[in-house]
Amino acid sequence: MAYGYAGRVLHVDLTTGSLIVETPPETFYRTYMGGSALALYYLLREMPAGIDPLGPGNIMVLALSVITGAPISGQSRLTIAAKSPQSEGIGDSQSGGFFPAEMKAAGFDAIVIRGRSDHPVYLWLHDGEAELRDADHLWGLETGDTLDRIKLEIGDQKIRVVQIGPAGEKLARLASIISDTSHANGRTGMGAVMGSKNLKAVVVRGTAAFQSADKEALSQLARWGVKHFADSDAASLGKYGTAGIINSQNGKGGLPTRNYSSGFFAQANDISGETMYETILQKRETCYACVIRCKRVVSVPDGPLPVDPRYGGPEYETTAAFGSYCGINDLNAIAKANEICARFGLDSISTGATIAWAMDAYEHGYLTQADTDGLDLHFGNAAAMVQLTEKIARRDGIGDLLAEGSARAAEQIGRGSEALVVAVKRQELPAHMPQVKRSLALIYAVNPFGADHQSSEHDGPYEQPGAFDYYAERLLELDLQSPQPRYSLQPGKVRYAYYTEIVYSLLDTLNVCQFVFGPTWQLYDTAQLVETVKAVTGWPVTLYELMKVGERRLNMMRAFNAREGIGREADKLPPKLYQPLKGGKSDGMAVSEAELEQAKDWYYAMAGWDVASGRPKRGKLSELGLDWVADLLNLP
Amino acid sequence: MAYGYAGRVLHVDLTTGSLIVETPPETFYRTYMGGSALALYYLLREMPAGIDPLGPGNIMVLALSVITGAPISGQSRLTIAAKSPQSEGIGDSQSGGFFPAEMKAAGFDAIVIRGRSDHPVYLWLHDGEAELRDADHLWGLETGDTLDRIKLEIGDQKIRVVQIGPAGEKLARLASIISDTSHANGRTGMGAVMGSKNLKAVVVRGTAAFQSADKEALSQLARWGVKHFADSDAASLGKYGTAGIINSQNGKGGLPTRNYSSGFFAQANDISGETMYETILQKRETCYACVIRCKRVVSVPDGPLPVDPRYGGPEYETTAAFGSYCGINDLNAIAKANEICARFGLDSISTGATIAWAMDAYEHGYLTQADTDGLDLHFGNAAAMVQLTEKIARRDGIGDLLAEGSARAAEQIGRGSEALVVAVKRQELPAHMPQVKRSLALIYAVNPFGADHQSSEHDGPYEQPGAFDYYAERLLELDLQSPQPRYSLQPGKVRYAYYTEIVYSLLDTLNVCQFVFGPTWQLYDTAQLVETVKAVTGWPVTLYELMKVGERRLNMMRAFNAREGIGREADKLPPKLYQPLKGGKSDGMAVSEAELEQAKDWYYAMAGWDVASGRPKRGKLSELGLDWVADLLNLP
Repeated sequence: MAYGYAGRVLHVDLTTGSLIVETPPETFYRTYMGGSALALYYLLREMPAGIDPLGPGNIMVLALSVITGAPISGQSRLTIAAKSPQSEGIGDSQSGGFFPAEMKAAGFDAIVIRGRSDHPVYLWLHDGEAELRDADHLWGLETGDTLDRIKLEIGDQKIRVVQIGPAGEKLARLASIISDTSHANGRTGMGAVMGSKNLKAVVVRGTAAFQSADKEALSQLARWGVKHFADSDAASLGKYGTAGIINSQNGKGGLPTRNYSSGFFAQANDISGETMYETILQKRETCYACVIRCKRVVSVPDGPLPVDPRYGGPEYETTAAFGSYCGINDLNAIAKANEICARFGLDSISTGATIAWAMDAYEHGYLTQADTDGLDLHFGNAAAMVQLTEKIARRDGIGDLLAEGSARAAEQIGRGSEALVVAVKRQELPAHMPQVKRSLALIYAVNPFGADHQSSEHDGPYEQPGAFDYYAERLLELDLQSPQPRYSLQPGKVRYAYYTEIVYSLLDTLNVCQFVFGPTWQLYDTAQLVETVKAVTGWPVTLYELMKVGERRLNMMRAFNAREGIGREADKLPPKLYQPLKGGKSDGMAVSEAELEQAKDWYYAMAGWDVASGRPKRGKLSELGLDWVADLLNLP
Repeated sequence: MAYGYAGRVLHVDLTTGSLIVETPPETFYRTYMGGSALALYYLLREMPAGIDPLGPGNIMVLALSVITGAPISGQSRLTIAAKSPQSEGIGDSQSGGFFPAEMKAAGFDAIVIRGRSDHPVYLWLHDGEAELRDADHLWGLETGDTLDRIKLEIGDQKIRVVQIGPAGEKLARLASIISDTSHANGRTGMGAVMGSKNLKAVVVRGTAAFQSADKEALSQLARWGVKHFADSDAASLGKYGTAGIINSQNGKGGLPTRNYSSGFFAQANDISGETMYETILQKRETCYACVIRCKRVVSVPDGPLPVDPRYGGPEYETTAAFGSYCGINDLNAIAKANEICARFGLDSISTGATIAWAMDAYEHGYLTQADTDGLDLHFGNAAAMVQLTEKIARRDGIGDLLAEGSARAAEQIGRGSEALVVAVKRQELPAHMPQVKRSLALIYAVNPFGADHQSSEHDGPYEQPGAFDYYAERLLELDLQSPQPRYSLQPGKVRYAYYTEIVYSLLDTLNVCQFVFGPTWQLYDTAQLVETVKAVTGWPVTLYELMKVGERRLNMMRAFNAREGIGREADKLPPKLYQPLKGGKSDGMAVSEAELEQAKDWYYAMAGWDVASGRPKRGKLSELGLDWVADLLNLP
């Protein structure tokens, strides 16, 4: 088996137009491996604290990993990281699709983007070459049109792009980066950062064959996945998409409803993955080389809210945010809102949640039709929700304010509306409820880039003795004993949250899909992830080494925030989560603030951080080989 | 592949004669796995702090692991742990041989021994049955005679024993426990504990076939070892035994000479493994199912110091302790001293080092012939060394005092002799010099049961860039980058020491030979250790889980000591190590106390312990699932 990995990092300075290719040593790749950790390496070293996230001083990194592009499910994902215009701490987002595998084939592992162009440009990478091109003619275009124009211009239908829409151009803090037309680096406002740099798109095309140390081992792993997929718990994702969990979430009282006031939505089935499958689903889509095919393509050809299938279809999160969050059971309207987010480049979770907040404020009388350009924002008004989504996308009227996100909008409006915000570090909560999945209370609070559902394993059915033994068995690979008591934040649950957080941190460093590889229900387990890294790189890695890489990335994010003055005090949940939910199975449930604070004590201590401040300490950074980060923070 | 492990733990109360068999749940085995961690589980839970290590309140645990007895090299080792009469903190020792595999076949994983019998007894385990038998007739016998008598009495030549000799009966704190006649649980005074309980021997015989989940995988691993042994760095151990390193140690200035005053012994070759091979070696021996055959059998049939081959032959440590430590180049005398240690049950390292200390004190005039029963204890007097070894074994004359070890003897004698003691936590230093292998300065200081050379990887040639790439590659499996600067205790070296300490802690929990499996030069690497545990237990373990088990054991030892009031202040090196060595390649070298204290700061911080006190904190214990230990220590 060949041993080694070599790759290339492109450094782009948009202010000067310089393009420099770096070929880092193998030890660099072995230490950081890719994705978020690789991005953090540059962000920490090359960007001082306190810069304006929407100014030219911000650095944006697009990063693949050493295994991205491997012809096996779940290996085509892209990290985009920068200082976040939402939290003003670390921003970090992942998307799937085809762009990542194509970028690898084009000969680049990462792109480090500095400065600001004085006019719109796009970056064109092809087979090892890099070029900045004028994008004046693309500025203002929606994502579908931009893609069409670039394909024509380059004369190659096989190019792949990541791009911003009009929302990113207008620096909406809710702006996302869209990959082709239907995948999104949705969260933490990366679209606004790209917009602030006058960078409309990154376009890639490559023909290099994927290099792996052990083709046969890789191929065996791929075949194993194809063979076992149908019997795996990931199979349901294929048929009904991520929205296939709507009804089960609702049954547990875990479907956020009417701005997180309840975990039960009486009309949940109207917006379920099953209903989508039976009504508006046109076909299933996939990412590069993936067997799961969880992506939706929905189509509504006629009627008042036609939906164009080229923009894909709503995920579970999107469906909940525009649906139950807003008390809306109109799947057509939800699909339309999703389409608008993809066309204009908006984060669908934050946009839906911000509308839900506005509706809640409207119901409370904190907002009136005088504020809303005349829109009636009662919960359940589907037409108003779609109109408001488009207003946010265009920064039109009240949409201009809401494009800043619910937290900033509430800060501006006041009147008591701040108490209705459901966000952490100004990032709106995703649709897995901490009241019901208690480990998420902790992870939503402490996650460096705000509330996130993809940063740890959720606690769920495998908390019940006897049930889901298969999950419990897999968790033992991480030295985690099951079951843990449900609805608790005892030390065992904190440990579960922390260890699985490290796994997910690793997944976002290797840029591996969390539906394909993971610690419980996913198609492949962590041992197979080790085998995948071995087969591609030839490095004799172990899960121990990989977990240390995951821990390293988590510590680097935490260090980034510490340097920005963001620590324990920012690791807090919104007050709404401490109020009892109403209705359904979770009626009366709430997170206890005292319990969360106690859990944070344990969590920081387990992580080797300072309990009082939540900041990393030199001991842990040094243990992870990050002495240079400790030096950067002037730690004693 | 079958999944699961079931085993039995025998609880013996020598005061009442009760014998109770416990069948712990599988989660217990998965969490603690065996060996030292399993022993610590009982010691921590069932023994209060402050008890007399030689009183009936001490608990002694003999423990195998879930993989002990597997028909593959390095899997027949036994942990014996109790409160140490040397350090009065945790005592912990390992031996190889045939007893461990036989005990497994007899149907027991561990024996927890409490109380004190009112007369000598031995414990007889055979095929699931346990019985206490009278041993009045064996008391006072040397180990060879005891073995013969028990074989006759039981009528089975295939029994295996662990036993004490007269030294253990007389509660010599240097007493070891001898397995059959030539393997030893040498360190930390376990023989004295066994003697204090009036327990002469534990005898085992079993016919149960070894159970493994995947026979074929195990067999493949065994065949791999047979095939690759000759080309491995472990091969030299086979030919020349552990003493094969005498000349290379000496060449680096790392052979402790004249009570650690020098790292260079001019006559080193006279006592080398090569010389032993060419002169007194009768044959090579082995432990159960091991391909390496590192054990020596030496024979001197005639002359003034005849040596009986049934007691094996000296290891590197023994050769150095009775040889270069004492300035002695007489291999016959060294072999004789080794034989006495095996016959009487003495730790050869501590005995040799205590004699070296006495010689140093004699040279300084702190001891005179008035103290030494007339013996001339100048360095180099081989005949006096042999006589003194026997005096210690019989607690005769000055031997009565020296049987307490050099630290206690110096405390009693005074006169400045305390400054010559070379011990940590009252345990004499083994023969790998911290001045030359700098990571050992830290590990000797912090190891919970005193200075130990088998508790971490030594630093050595793989510190040189380009050299020993194979080791560097293996170290990457542990997320350790090479090379590290030599003769330093910088954070990178501390991290190397700490991570490999966890590996060795794991090895002493799985009871695996550290010559066979390990992080650098050993026959098998850590990934193959994972495969071995999988093949035997069927558990889908990962290196991550196993490293957590190793870390757990280390923390349990540390917690045991904390409860006894032993913390950072006891983690110190003897003053001699801060004085420059004289002669050879290490001339002028010394450990710096300031550097060590700084390294301890880093080490405790990396380990998640309190830097000021060196005690475990709740955060780390909780992270390892050891909340119950934190509760036991009343940690906040």
